[in-house]
Amino acid sequence: MADKLIIFDTTLRDGEQSPGASMTKDEKIRIAKQLERLKVDVIEAGFAAASPGDFESIKAISATIKDSIICSLSRANDRDIARAAEALQAAQRKRIHTFIATSPLHMEKKLRMSPDQVLEQAIQAVRYARNFTDDVEFSPEDGSRSEMDFLCRVIEAVIKEGATTINFADTVGYGVPELYGTMLKNLRERIPNSDKAIWSVHCHNDLGMAVANSLAGVMIGGARQIECTINGLGERAGNTALEEIVMAVRTRKDYFNLELGIDATQIVPASKLVSQITGFAVQPNKAVVGANAFAHASGIHQDGILKARDTYEIMRAEDVGWSANKIVLGKLSGRNAFKQRLDELGITLESEADVNGAFARFKELADRKSEIFDEDILALVSDEEQANDNEAYHFVSLAQHSETGEMPAAKVVFSNQGKEISCEGIGNGPVDAIVNAIESKVASGAELLLFSVNAITTGTQSQGEVTMRLSKSGRIVNGVGADPDIVVASAKAYLSALNKLESKSEKLNPQI
Amino acid sequence: MADKLIIFDTTLRDGEQSPGASMTKDEKIRIAKQLERLKVDVIEAGFAAASPGDFESIKAISATIKDSIICSLSRANDRDIARAAEALQAAQRKRIHTFIATSPLHMEKKLRMSPDQVLEQAIQAVRYARNFTDDVEFSPEDGSRSEMDFLCRVIEAVIKEGATTINFADTVGYGVPELYGTMLKNLRERIPNSDKAIWSVHCHNDLGMAVANSLAGVMIGGARQIECTINGLGERAGNTALEEIVMAVRTRKDYFNLELGIDATQIVPASKLVSQITGFAVQPNKAVVGANAFAHASGIHQDGILKARDTYEIMRAEDVGWSANKIVLGKLSGRNAFKQRLDELGITLESEADVNGAFARFKELADRKSEIFDEDILALVSDEEQANDNEAYHFVSLAQHSETGEMPAAKVVFSNQGKEISCEGIGNGPVDAIVNAIESKVASGAELLLFSVNAITTGTQSQGEVTMRLSKSGRIVNGVGADPDIVVASAKAYLSALNKLESKSEKLNPQI
Repeated sequence: MADKLIIFDTTLRDGEQSPGASMTKDEKIRIAKQLERLKVDVIEAGFAAASPGDFESIKAISATIKDSIICSLSRANDRDIARAAEALQAAQRKRIHTFIATSPLHMEKKLRMSPDQVLEQAIQAVRYARNFTDDVEFSPEDGSRSEMDFLCRVIEAVIKEGATTINFADTVGYGVPELYGTMLKNLRERIPNSDKAIWSVHCHNDLGMAVANSLAGVMIGGARQIECTINGLGERAGNTALEEIVMAVRTRKDYFNLELGIDATQIVPASKLVSQITGFAVQPNKAVVGANAFAHASGIHQDGILKARDTYEIMRAEDVGWSANKIVLGKLSGRNAFKQRLDELGITLESEADVNGAFARFKELADRKSEIFDEDILALVSDEEQANDNEAYHFVSLAQHSETGEMPAAKVVFSNQGKEISCEGIGNGPVDAIVNAIESKVASGAELLLFSVNAITTGTQSQGEVTMRLSKSGRIVNGVGADPDIVVASAKAYLSALNKLESKSEKLNPQI
Repeated sequence: MADKLIIFDTTLRDGEQSPGASMTKDEKIRIAKQLERLKVDVIEAGFAAASPGDFESIKAISATIKDSIICSLSRANDRDIARAAEALQAAQRKRIHTFIATSPLHMEKKLRMSPDQVLEQAIQAVRYARNFTDDVEFSPEDGSRSEMDFLCRVIEAVIKEGATTINFADTVGYGVPELYGTMLKNLRERIPNSDKAIWSVHCHNDLGMAVANSLAGVMIGGARQIECTINGLGERAGNTALEEIVMAVRTRKDYFNLELGIDATQIVPASKLVSQITGFAVQPNKAVVGANAFAHASGIHQDGILKARDTYEIMRAEDVGWSANKIVLGKLSGRNAFKQRLDELGITLESEADVNGAFARFKELADRKSEIFDEDILALVSDEEQANDNEAYHFVSLAQHSETGEMPAAKVVFSNQGKEISCEGIGNGPVDAIVNAIESKVASGAELLLFSVNAITTGTQSQGEVTMRLSKSGRIVNGVGADPDIVVASAKAYLSALNKLESKSEKLNPQI
């Protein structure tokens, strides 16, 4: 029988470490539910000790998700592990993932510990974690730059102590398939009890080879778990893309001969959800989930190939969940139909008041846009969730005008802690004008690093989804806003980014 | 001594086959000049017999580029090859790249030829091509699905006939590194005169492994040429990304031990130029050329790693041409400074009138935007080039207004064949309103497939660059427009897309 390949999704932990990709608890729950529909085996929901926000998110996801194993990262100390265990308490199946650096550089410069101290701490951590769950993963941080002998000692010891998964990471994306796979093979051959654990790979895409490295880790190295993220979200060039791994293993089953538990038809919905929540757009020529991934140039239809077209397609668009935008609701849809669609999309709003709020937004949108798609509903719920936060800035209304030969001007009304504020501004375009208007009151002094707009669906009636990435004092945040009017969407995105800048978010970003 | 790895760029041929990525002659020349600055060894400039536009583009590039070999694709027949040779006449160094399908499916269904006829035609084609140049490349189309014995016969025969490069393509992106590399190795071992030609790889990224497959073709299979495109542009999930190949080979020289002629500091400028001209955005988490490729989360600076930060970076941003946006010109810059900067950017405008036109646009922009960056100049030249086309629609002026609670409205003035047309429209946003206004006169009935905006530089004063992808009767085109006012940029993009829809562009898209 073919071996099972375990898909470990770390969109909510390593993916969230991308500059600007931080998510709220509610956003994380929505993504976790989609990951459950996708049938990923393990969801790394966060790093409980990193921040109270991470802790609460893991706790909420543990209480919500039934089918996937929920995992929290933790450093190799009792406090972190206890915190992870506490956050995971409600999970049906839970995993604690503990890590400690094993490279000379990290041990000396960061930990200021001797190798023997690191070994001892790794053992203690795994032993302590086993008190809370018998599913314990261990990662040697910066493992690929560690000394082989020491690495073998540490891993042998933690397996003996009960670590059930060993994760070997290519943290800096330096690997090439043959070398990375062989390194893993050597490790497994040298460690006497290596067969007592499942081996895992965790690769970064800096040289464009994360997928091939991960699969070489499986084929050459014998790993049976791949850590990956939706859309390859992650720091720098990102992590291994889940969708590419899944479709490579499925499409080339003749070669890989591995079983996957994944429901691939949930891939594109997952991709869209993560892109919408984080504001990280997917490029058209991205494998599997890019808008062009299944598009052929028109020319091909003209030269007699059409009949044999199947032979040019190694995957079918519908296998990964691509479908034409479906009109799901319209102006005449009632509250029940709306609520039912929310349920089908896996969205649970906390109170009836929230449902009413979202429904009011829906009616308002349906007045302006005759066809309402799932993507519109997702955007609307994101908006509603932001509006529930009383501390934050909220968009109220806007008027803007631009005309060739004149300076674009805008008036914006927004609220802060429930108080309405009116402001005016001019700029070299309507978006510049609204930012100047808002800044005339807020004076954040933040720098705009990135501005992008994408239509949520096709057609000119589509809502525009704006991402604005702001930087201030070394912090980077993404604000996202959606509206059929892209100037309004820009105002919402700017206010959303300001809210994120104001929220406290000191947290640790481990380098695994 | 290390072997040279030949970088064969096919952005202008295979990249252009992406739905919507078609380019004008002037745009192709600008990209070719940047490829020359990047020092790519071979530029595949097009497919001369595919269309008169392709022919003229290859001819112009042949007359312009001095350092790189210029290549034209051609089917394996005298007419195509003569056409390629004619287009390449002025080139300092020229290559003819001829191809014919060798798989049973293609030979039977598409060519309706017997294997012996295909073999004979391949021989004749290479023999004929050698009359024009001693640099002839041969590709067996659909090679990876061809019968091994027949493939060996064809390749042995064309090498004997004087083919100097043999290109083995993974057309449908089905390969995995080990298998693809080994298939190439077997081919080279079985063909007695295989050492008389340089072997080439050409991979597609459908399963996310184009880079790894190409490099396996080199390391296992012994290829010494990689065919690739800037940003991995190409049909579906695209071709092998040039920037990832170059940086993998450079960064892991310890493993690959290959020489490259590439000037890597020209990578990011090339990426931006191709993205700007084609309207194919690059996602933030794209390796090497994504906005995040060298960004670290803020957290990393807080935990004592800062001192050892170099050890987390396997490449430096400046090595691939990332640099802070530099203010290059301002309001007070004169015509000479402007012209000099054009020269430095490799832009040659055809006449003094064109320079004057571009300079007038520059002054107008500088009135609205205090700091002018290189990216602004590139956008402005694209605009100017479009404006020179007398047949086409051109943007003249616009007024638009949106206000919460009211229907957004726009007035647009545009010209068609020199005649000004005024129109008005309303919509659910300003962009919808301008499209409705223009459609009230043009009535193209095109469907909007994709709408995206990206800021050209950082800061709210930046110009927005809008891409609108339209579809009509099976044709797909991208229109691009730039302006500090994103509504104006949208109007320009829409008119530019309409121009492309009206232009004739029946051309062949070979599947290599």
